[in-house]
Amino acid sequence: MITLLTDFGSADYFVGSVKGVILSIDPLSQIIDISHEVPPHDIQFAAFTLGACFAEYPEGTVHLAVVDPGVGTSRRVIAVNAARHYFVGPDNGIFTFIYTRDPQARVFHADHPSFFRFLPSSTFHGRDIFAPLAARLDLGHRIENVGHPIEDFVKLPIHEPSFDADGRVIGEIIHIDRYGNCVTNLTKLHLDSKGAYSLSIGGTNIGLIADNYTDSKNAGQPILYYGSAGYWEIGVWCDSASRTLGLSRGMRFNLRQLLK
Amino acid sequence: MITLLTDFGSADYFVGSVKGVILSIDPLSQIIDISHEVPPHDIQFAAFTLGACFAEYPEGTVHLAVVDPGVGTSRRVIAVNAARHYFVGPDNGIFTFIYTRDPQARVFHADHPSFFRFLPSSTFHGRDIFAPLAARLDLGHRIENVGHPIEDFVKLPIHEPSFDADGRVIGEIIHIDRYGNCVTNLTKLHLDSKGAYSLSIGGTNIGLIADNYTDSKNAGQPILYYGSAGYWEIGVWCDSASRTLGLSRGMRFNLRQLLK
Amino acid sequence: MITLLTDFGSADYFVGSVKGVILSIDPLSQIIDISHEVPPHDIQFAAFTLGACFAEYPEGTVHLAVVDPGVGTSRRVIAVNAARHYFVGPDNGIFTFIYTRDPQARVFHADHPSFFRFLPSSTFHGRDIFAPLAARLDLGHRIENVGHPIEDFVKLPIHEPSFDADGRVIGEIIHIDRYGNCVTNLTKLHLDSKGAYSLSIGGTNIGLIADNYTDSKNAGQPILYYGSAGYWEIGVWCDSASRTLGLSRGMRFNLRQLLK
Repeated sequence: MITLLTDFGSADYFVGSVKGVILSIDPLSQIIDISHEVPPHDIQFAAFTLGACFAEYPEGTVHLAVVDPGVGTSRRVIAVNAARHYFVGPDNGIFTFIYTRDPQARVFHADHPSFFRFLPSSTFHGRDIFAPLAARLDLGHRIENVGHPIEDFVKLPIHEPSFDADGRVIGEIIHIDRYGNCVTNLTKLHLDSKGAYSLSIGGTNIGLIADNYTDSKNAGQPILYYGSAGYWEIGVWCDSASRTLGLSRGMRFNLRQLLK
Repeated sequence: MITLLTDFGSADYFVGSVKGVILSIDPLSQIIDISHEVPPHDIQFAAFTLGACFAEYPEGTVHLAVVDPGVGTSRRVIAVNAARHYFVGPDNGIFTFIYTRDPQARVFHADHPSFFRFLPSSTFHGRDIFAPLAARLDLGHRIENVGHPIEDFVKLPIHEPSFDADGRVIGEIIHIDRYGNCVTNLTKLHLDSKGAYSLSIGGTNIGLIADNYTDSKNAGQPILYYGSAGYWEIGVWCDSASRTLGLSRGMRFNLRQLLK
Repeated sequence: MITLLTDFGSADYFVGSVKGVILSIDPLSQIIDISHEVPPHDIQFAAFTLGACFAEYPEGTVHLAVVDPGVGTSRRVIAVNAARHYFVGPDNGIFTFIYTRDPQARVFHADHPSFFRFLPSSTFHGRDIFAPLAARLDLGHRIENVGHPIEDFVKLPIHEPSFDADGRVIGEIIHIDRYGNCVTNLTKLHLDSKGAYSLSIGGTNIGLIADNYTDSKNAGQPILYYGSAGYWEIGVWCDSASRTLGLSRGMRFNLRQLLK
């Protein structure tokens, strides 16, 4: 089983080529589209998306992730074995949330040309390098044979929540979904829905903390709710929190626990 | 075989999560994308789409349909056995055209938690409730075991064609496709292409009735033609009837048979 | 294995219907989406897309391509055997690049109704004619049985590069991808990256010829590079060459080799 996550879009021949290469090498593979609509060159969007859904797949699944503005440069091709899954893509941080999930991740610089197409192009590594590599891992080739292990793989500079001098948590928006919901980097480790908190971001104060997005329905105001990707999210019922509150990825906020 | 119809869009991780859950429970299932581009929260669009294509699939296919603005509220989860197919989704009218097709439809309120993910989230029932339920029906679990049968399931208020005092048929636009063709609620039971009719909608009179969309080609004017979903449609050759005639879903029209 | 390439879009029921018909006839077929986002009625876009990726698939694959503004008219339904693959679609030039690739292509006018749905509609041949035909070829029915061979099949009027009186190559833009890269009709037969050339198009002169799209990165200027579909392309690093240079499909250019 091989999943695909790219910024190739759905109109051009790029996705069709990648699937054809996989099926020519590995005709019985099951190919699953996660998305081809990652915003062009948006590595962080892809990294978040893969981190949010890969673990739903059976162990041993090969995840092919290609958002690759550096195609044709010297950026490395990597294959990763982590959390009992396999990952193939460019070494540009696209697997950041995988490394976070599994600190024992093994990362290999894949430079053994026998795993690639003969004479690969310099413009379409998705087809000529990543797809053949993914297909061969799915066929059962051992990841140790694709190249040598590396430790200095690239991670995106995503901040962990921290504390300021006043004891407030400083957090960050790490993803905005199609509905405009703003995913923060806070998990249940950082707050639970039983306490009273106030979150301040870009001039807006959010005091309503809920387990449930729909709790916003009656309130008609922004809430912080626990989202399905395992992070607290800022949302507005049936509206875009990003647009109505002017929020964008990377914005910082602070959160303080209120005295009861 | 499991088909998917959602308003999740193609960019985010939502579709990837649903597919992963299905494949983890039911690794040999064949997953077919019908669409993930239903306009957000547009239950009627999804209901029409499913009604227009489900019957092409083999008997026994499980159709997962998730357009679910009520996620996290008390709206029910249902599983339906109708027309020798299975359907899983929220009880919000999304199966309206299925009930129309098969008056013997059996509808079950699925509340047996063993069919769901353990501790489902309140925000992503597509992944935590609907996908596991669909996968287990596809595996062969009996629908009688998911919960108890109900009779008061939700139907969308879609009007049947009626007659006014002057003997004219009062009809309604029930769907507008991407080309701007306007699907009415009239079938071959209501008119055939042999008679002479005049349809009046929003200030426009349409006198040309055709079996064939391309009959509009020479005329350069709106026509009423028999569409592929089994309903008469209002169209304009290579143009959007919706935009050029100012038509929207829910608009009423009247149709009278002309004397010969 | 059956690939799908259409302009049906991803929102409506059209794709769902086609897949259902195939799976009802040929339940074990593997259906692969190449694209359903071909711009509506853009036969040349589909022709280029299919030509650029079909050969990646295993021999014997059936490619279903439906961009069919002539549905319901007398345009013919064809099945093609070329380059050890099968193709099913309307006879409107959508297989132009297949014929170019394999001059021995065998083209059949498919008019034997036993390959179609009984009483096909006049509006949705994708579902009623092309899908059943593709499914039956995939099941192993012989292409010779679908109808009789023809020689006068339709080809798009795509120019071959030619020479003007001054010895310059006259070329043409034949495709523009989602990134705005402009694919020309020049191949490695027409120029190689070792010589010095100057390309003149719409008031712009491009003097930088590269093997590699990323060579444009430092230059910040348009380049001509060898693209992944086997043609030279005009591109601008991380920008749309089409938009920034005002280029559109069908535009001609001339290319002259510089004296060394």
